[in-house]
Amino acid sequence: MFDEVKSLNEECGIFGVWGAKDANYLTYLGLHSLQHRGQEGAGIVANDGQKLRAYRNLGLLTQVFSKPEYLNSLLGNSAIGHVRYSTAGENKIENVQPLLFDFTDSQLALAHNGNLTNADTLKKELEKDGHIFKSSSDSEVLVHLIKQSQKSTFHEQIVEALNKIQGGFAYLLLTKNELIVALDSHGFRPVSIGKLKTGGYVVASETCALDAVGATFYRDVKPGELITINDKGVKIDHWTTKTQLAICSMEYVYFARPDSNILGINVHSARKRMGAILAKEFPAPGDIVVGVPNSSLSAASGYAEASGLPYEMGLIKNQYMGREFIQPTQELREKSVRQKLAAVKGVVSGKRVILVDDSIVRGTTCAYIVQMLKEAGALEVHLRIASPRFMHPCFYGIDIQEKSELIAAHKSVEEMNQIFGSDSLQFLSEKGLISAIGLKADAPYSGLDMSYFNGDYPTYLYDYESKK
Amino acid sequence: MFDEVKSLNEECGIFGVWGAKDANYLTYLGLHSLQHRGQEGAGIVANDGQKLRAYRNLGLLTQVFSKPEYLNSLLGNSAIGHVRYSTAGENKIENVQPLLFDFTDSQLALAHNGNLTNADTLKKELEKDGHIFKSSSDSEVLVHLIKQSQKSTFHEQIVEALNKIQGGFAYLLLTKNELIVALDSHGFRPVSIGKLKTGGYVVASETCALDAVGATFYRDVKPGELITINDKGVKIDHWTTKTQLAICSMEYVYFARPDSNILGINVHSARKRMGAILAKEFPAPGDIVVGVPNSSLSAASGYAEASGLPYEMGLIKNQYMGREFIQPTQELREKSVRQKLAAVKGVVSGKRVILVDDSIVRGTTCAYIVQMLKEAGALEVHLRIASPRFMHPCFYGIDIQEKSELIAAHKSVEEMNQIFGSDSLQFLSEKGLISAIGLKADAPYSGLDMSYFNGDYPTYLYDYESKK
Amino acid sequence: MFDEVKSLNEECGIFGVWGAKDANYLTYLGLHSLQHRGQEGAGIVANDGQKLRAYRNLGLLTQVFSKPEYLNSLLGNSAIGHVRYSTAGENKIENVQPLLFDFTDSQLALAHNGNLTNADTLKKELEKDGHIFKSSSDSEVLVHLIKQSQKSTFHEQIVEALNKIQGGFAYLLLTKNELIVALDSHGFRPVSIGKLKTGGYVVASETCALDAVGATFYRDVKPGELITINDKGVKIDHWTTKTQLAICSMEYVYFARPDSNILGINVHSARKRMGAILAKEFPAPGDIVVGVPNSSLSAASGYAEASGLPYEMGLIKNQYMGREFIQPTQELREKSVRQKLAAVKGVVSGKRVILVDDSIVRGTTCAYIVQMLKEAGALEVHLRIASPRFMHPCFYGIDIQEKSELIAAHKSVEEMNQIFGSDSLQFLSEKGLISAIGLKADAPYSGLDMSYFNGDYPTYLYDYESKK
Amino acid sequence: MFDEVKSLNEECGIFGVWGAKDANYLTYLGLHSLQHRGQEGAGIVANDGQKLRAYRNLGLLTQVFSKPEYLNSLLGNSAIGHVRYSTAGENKIENVQPLLFDFTDSQLALAHNGNLTNADTLKKELEKDGHIFKSSSDSEVLVHLIKQSQKSTFHEQIVEALNKIQGGFAYLLLTKNELIVALDSHGFRPVSIGKLKTGGYVVASETCALDAVGATFYRDVKPGELITINDKGVKIDHWTTKTQLAICSMEYVYFARPDSNILGINVHSARKRMGAILAKEFPAPGDIVVGVPNSSLSAASGYAEASGLPYEMGLIKNQYMGREFIQPTQELREKSVRQKLAAVKGVVSGKRVILVDDSIVRGTTCAYIVQMLKEAGALEVHLRIASPRFMHPCFYGIDIQEKSELIAAHKSVEEMNQIFGSDSLQFLSEKGLISAIGLKADAPYSGLDMSYFNGDYPTYLYDYESKK
Repeated sequence: MFDEVKSLNEECGIFGVWGAKDANYLTYLGLHSLQHRGQEGAGIVANDGQKLRAYRNLGLLTQVFSKPEYLNSLLGNSAIGHVRYSTAGENKIENVQPLLFDFTDSQLALAHNGNLTNADTLKKELEKDGHIFKSSSDSEVLVHLIKQSQKSTFHEQIVEALNKIQGGFAYLLLTKNELIVALDSHGFRPVSIGKLKTGGYVVASETCALDAVGATFYRDVKPGELITINDKGVKIDHWTTKTQLAICSMEYVYFARPDSNILGINVHSARKRMGAILAKEFPAPGDIVVGVPNSSLSAASGYAEASGLPYEMGLIKNQYMGREFIQPTQELREKSVRQKLAAVKGVVSGKRVILVDDSIVRGTTCAYIVQMLKEAGALEVHLRIASPRFMHPCFYGIDIQEKSELIAAHKSVEEMNQIFGSDSLQFLSEKGLISAIGLKADAPYSGLDMSYFNGDYPTYLYDYESKK
Repeated sequence: MFDEVKSLNEECGIFGVWGAKDANYLTYLGLHSLQHRGQEGAGIVANDGQKLRAYRNLGLLTQVFSKPEYLNSLLGNSAIGHVRYSTAGENKIENVQPLLFDFTDSQLALAHNGNLTNADTLKKELEKDGHIFKSSSDSEVLVHLIKQSQKSTFHEQIVEALNKIQGGFAYLLLTKNELIVALDSHGFRPVSIGKLKTGGYVVASETCALDAVGATFYRDVKPGELITINDKGVKIDHWTTKTQLAICSMEYVYFARPDSNILGINVHSARKRMGAILAKEFPAPGDIVVGVPNSSLSAASGYAEASGLPYEMGLIKNQYMGREFIQPTQELREKSVRQKLAAVKGVVSGKRVILVDDSIVRGTTCAYIVQMLKEAGALEVHLRIASPRFMHPCFYGIDIQEKSELIAAHKSVEEMNQIFGSDSLQFLSEKGLISAIGLKADAPYSGLDMSYFNGDYPTYLYDYESKK
Repeated sequence: MFDEVKSLNEECGIFGVWGAKDANYLTYLGLHSLQHRGQEGAGIVANDGQKLRAYRNLGLLTQVFSKPEYLNSLLGNSAIGHVRYSTAGENKIENVQPLLFDFTDSQLALAHNGNLTNADTLKKELEKDGHIFKSSSDSEVLVHLIKQSQKSTFHEQIVEALNKIQGGFAYLLLTKNELIVALDSHGFRPVSIGKLKTGGYVVASETCALDAVGATFYRDVKPGELITINDKGVKIDHWTTKTQLAICSMEYVYFARPDSNILGINVHSARKRMGAILAKEFPAPGDIVVGVPNSSLSAASGYAEASGLPYEMGLIKNQYMGREFIQPTQELREKSVRQKLAAVKGVVSGKRVILVDDSIVRGTTCAYIVQMLKEAGALEVHLRIASPRFMHPCFYGIDIQEKSELIAAHKSVEEMNQIFGSDSLQFLSEKGLISAIGLKADAPYSGLDMSYFNGDYPTYLYDYESKK
Repeated sequence: MFDEVKSLNEECGIFGVWGAKDANYLTYLGLHSLQHRGQEGAGIVANDGQKLRAYRNLGLLTQVFSKPEYLNSLLGNSAIGHVRYSTAGENKIENVQPLLFDFTDSQLALAHNGNLTNADTLKKELEKDGHIFKSSSDSEVLVHLIKQSQKSTFHEQIVEALNKIQGGFAYLLLTKNELIVALDSHGFRPVSIGKLKTGGYVVASETCALDAVGATFYRDVKPGELITINDKGVKIDHWTTKTQLAICSMEYVYFARPDSNILGINVHSARKRMGAILAKEFPAPGDIVVGVPNSSLSAASGYAEASGLPYEMGLIKNQYMGREFIQPTQELREKSVRQKLAAVKGVVSGKRVILVDDSIVRGTTCAYIVQMLKEAGALEVHLRIASPRFMHPCFYGIDIQEKSELIAAHKSVEEMNQIFGSDSLQFLSEKGLISAIGLKADAPYSGLDMSYFNGDYPTYLYDYESKK
């Protein structure tokens, strides 16, 4: 998928560590492997048992920690970190996480992946009580609810607070004494726990981050769980028992790194199966199979294998593309786009190309890619999408909250085919996607949130109900 | 191939344009698509018909041109540019090209891809005559020879000078009046010419740069040619007729971008054929085929296709890796390596992996990758190299000039297999490589320089003869 | 005064503008002229009548606004800005002002110069009510009190809130509709209002900022005032009538820029008078008068004039000193200090030097400067301090809150003279300082806060009472 | 003097050290104290007895050495360094010094302060012989002449080469074996030698750099001298005996740092005497004396003392002004100028101001400053210039080579007075300047080059003769 252009952005990656020397550096490594989940801001809060210290800023992780002293100043054996996506232009340092709260008698740091559906309502109520929010994100509401709670222990306060919020959340909370992990009752976002050889524990949005720090997989966090990690070890508890798995299907389709396992299923392999099933459902009269780099390469190779056609590198992505790239005059704009993605003439010329993309969101680049392939000499371009039509916005943590942004919500398959200039266009079926992922939970859609495709939201949407 | 570690570096990419508005920006785009040929320095010299202006510095292109004004200051309708590799640590701005010479009555800019084999000898002779060199690179010798020439016209001087130098070179020379391209008598390095829709011409190390600026392919530059581009058009001439094609085989194996065509042969397709022939020559008892990203992916998919085995993403490269990445303590060094390349457990676990790499130079990362795959659960790792044993250094433009650096020069295949910890190891045959590339020139090895593999250097080596 | 070393730091400068095109740039200019009041962080919030937008970061103003787009994004005809000092090492972006609060139905921005004496107490109370603070600074308390207020109008809420806080404050508050200025009941910090030719108004900590934007002086803000500036003009009101002027005497002695007028008194002229009275009170057997650059130059020239001795540049400050200066090995540390300040051998050699400094806080550099002058050949060094002994910390906005840091609190004049290695040491009398400043308010010490020198704090100190 | 605007720029500062640990850092410190002599580029070449290593770039010293590793990489016990001015816009890294020449059998580094008057002629001749120049500066000519020499020893070659060049030069040459200092036959530029406590030697453009590294003054370099410093010590020799002192008078008037001694005369003291004599020659009906910061403060205090009038800080310079300052819209341009220099209303209002400036070159800021003072309430402004009318360009190392740039070359005193809007204008007499400086050499004008003021150039001007 054509990253910057697709405008389909995960809102965060989270990472935590307890009980390890160099907690700051481990968190840096862990976040680095989660960078694909958010490129707009990054931060780490470390805890040396006496004090929590934070460093965060806008930009990529390596830009935020541009000087080693920024990282070195974060002392202690535990830490949490966050990488974040935010809408371009909103240069809001306040929203970069982890948030660190300095109470007069204690400190609390928080990192959140997800989106609350009743945050606005809660915020208004809290503001009426005089509460003031430091960020415009929804993540902070939890802390206000904790502080508002009249319960006597911190844990009881957390449980009470968690029971008031709705939507998707994987929370990491860090205090002087413990690292707390909480997952929403549907498990919309993945979180896994790993164990370090030296004895400590790490928590991460994806298992690729466990591998990155050399931790072995310990277990996935389950819906409704409230897990406490401290010097005594891991204590698994839950804040609610009313749970039903509905993990985001787009994590498998697009967001997660291919080397991650989500609930035991390898992402690359799931994508290959999507491609293979797609080939069965919608064969195409092509000579070669080409994937849109990088996210669609797995699905494309699955399609090729299943169809017995050669898998070819018909498109190539420039790995040196970055934000520093100088934008040209309007006249040269098109040439600039070629810098990101280029058609491989020597491969596609004179061929009927089956182009596999993982998904279509706005569709803005599809037309461009098809045209580029044809200019490079492709005789035909048959577009095959390795997921169903994306017709409904997400309110649990993905940056697509307006139906108007989704081309499939407004155009028929045939209309899209004409807009893109492709010779045929087909989408993987819902059933095919569920089968390809292969999750076997005793829940609707085998435990997947398929609302993107069918509008069947697993929860009431509260503040967003009208946007459905 | 595992870039930073392989230490096999192309020494440059060159790009030139004549007769086009925004020559500076076109050169920027062209160089951007050639960035893989050199990441240590970049520069552009532009010509407005009155004056040549230069900007160059150490770093990636986007770092060198970190402010638009640096690029905007390079006025004119023609320009040449250069991206360069240099040994790490040697922070020598002087060696970054294009070199711009300000004579009292004229200016001359030069960009060079290649390596001269008699530069030291010529330099010493020139110094005896009082000549002083501005750079420690060999590229500058040509200009001194031109200046020394007693011939009456600039072109005659160039021809005389070119006839004195030996080795590999693709030169771009820019003056107020013309853009000159010269290729050595064996055509060791690729250079192609493209035509812009608006009428101007571009010259580039690889055709991917023609595509990047929207130019159509015009022709490849041939050994011994001396081409002049000015406002009258392209004039093709030659500085010698004693030519014999011996283009660098490693351009096909490793250096060039997959979307480039070299002498009419698409690089990705050639690599797929290398993999396919390798599969025929050396089948392996594996369940899946995995390539080392990114350079070996084409060969791996060719191997998979030919062997009927599934092609899998068993290794993944972190696209956010950069120089700003903070180096950890020695203790954590290994974890840092994982940031660059990670094994995909969910894919390789329980599998017999056929690992395809394009080439083995020092072999330092092979052992690491094999171990990583085994730790991730691979039952066996059969290493298949899509080129013959790399046993002889290069003196025509690649940064491997010491036999001692080459593991295959000192170890047998079986010794290497044991060092790497792989379960078997095989290399593509020389014949297989020549056949896979498919060049059909009437010259030894069908027109390829195969000296890396067999030590059969196409030329006498002059200053380097003792290193053979 | 030897800036970085003295560790006597103003905590802020504030600037606001209402009703002017380019409010963002005017604020930038205004803050630039107030940079001496705080170098650790800077920010601007602008208001276009619809939305308030903020940009702030750590560093000097020009570093924070390192790209024009950061400034250009701050649209609108009104704005407030802030420059801030914070203890080194505390890399807390959260504390950089202006703070911008996004309520669900409105926005409020705040910039504060000063220090509240009952903030901790209020914070604890507010936290008990569930309030959560976004910064560790005291500035934010006011907003929580406003939100807590049950009064019906915003103005009544502000008045109620202001009546709960104690200490020193000059507040700027910006909403969509108005710019509000509030000064504490003693007027500890200076604030002045200016009028732009084009009709708008500006507010600034010092009049030098009015000059910087070409505004004419309109009036000083008086203790207890609450001033509202909106499209209808300036409305002067008060939040309390129990006021008594006690403006910080150190503003005149050290902090303010010489070209500023504070309550109608030019700072440079006041300093000259301090030097002149010091010369009368404590003449010295010297040949030349030398001031410590830059803050003591006015006092030194006053001393020279009054004593009839030549005023000489016996010390020179390197204007290129900056934070980027590379710190040397311990062995070379002393040489590094010479980079900041150097003795002028040709001036002081063979001379009896009367060295005038504006004040002595920690005294750490006095010994060094005296030694440097003697090494440069000064026969004698008579130290004359243009303010009384600084023996008591400040709790109204200056970063000296520990008596232990103040050398004069622990050592007699004679002891200090020996520590410094000077040949004599004398301090301006309290009476002399009051007379030199020349304020004529009907209040103790003519309206000056002289507590630094005599411990006579104008207010009860609340949270700090024990530190007195 | 209003730095950036005056456009009167010294072309360099040079510093060298032999026989000292941390030669790199000492050179850094020395150059830092010479930064006022050139702000466009900086570099250091260090020598560890085996190899010379260079680092140089565009920008201020602290910007060039933005990372400690750049400095730390320059190993060895000897080094030379250079700070450089170059015309804005010409972003030519090639011209930044020291230049380092890598010959096949040796290395030579060179730093040059001054300007050769026959460089173009020599360059043309050398180019005819095939020599190619690496820089567009004249500094490099010397090395080509050395290389061209047929003499048998390096020293004989240098002597021969020095006898061919004309104009102003202070050269530092560094090889593996020695540090060589050469001064032109008129001693146009100052150079002094100092001795380190630890035994080594340093050489610098100004004595302030000796103080900066803690060296004691050893001796000034005299016209025609050729000094060799190596492990045996200092050997003083000469390359010509036809010498006559004509040191640049503007070094005393404007360029040098006040704490430097030039030929035994302290610069600040000389400037005070200029002001004092100016007061005698041209008294003015004023109430206060104000200097243009920072360069005119000494002269102003001298004027004040001699006239018995108070010396006041009527103008103030913003010490935070830097290149990063964002340039405003044209409309706000005037406000931006106020950021650099501000009139102190409280001081000048209602006063008749005697404004002392060290010199008038283009005169562009005079009008602005006079107007600013009047707007601030000054009743009259009497302009007194502490040097004679600057009517002739310089060809020995200062960046004023066009008569057309000099206002005094085209306008009478009365015309200038009207242009500036001042109430009277007077210039120090030539005799007054010579007397104020107090040099007593047995040479025209007591050993000063007064050609700026009277056109009496001490030498034939060769390539520049027509510009006279």
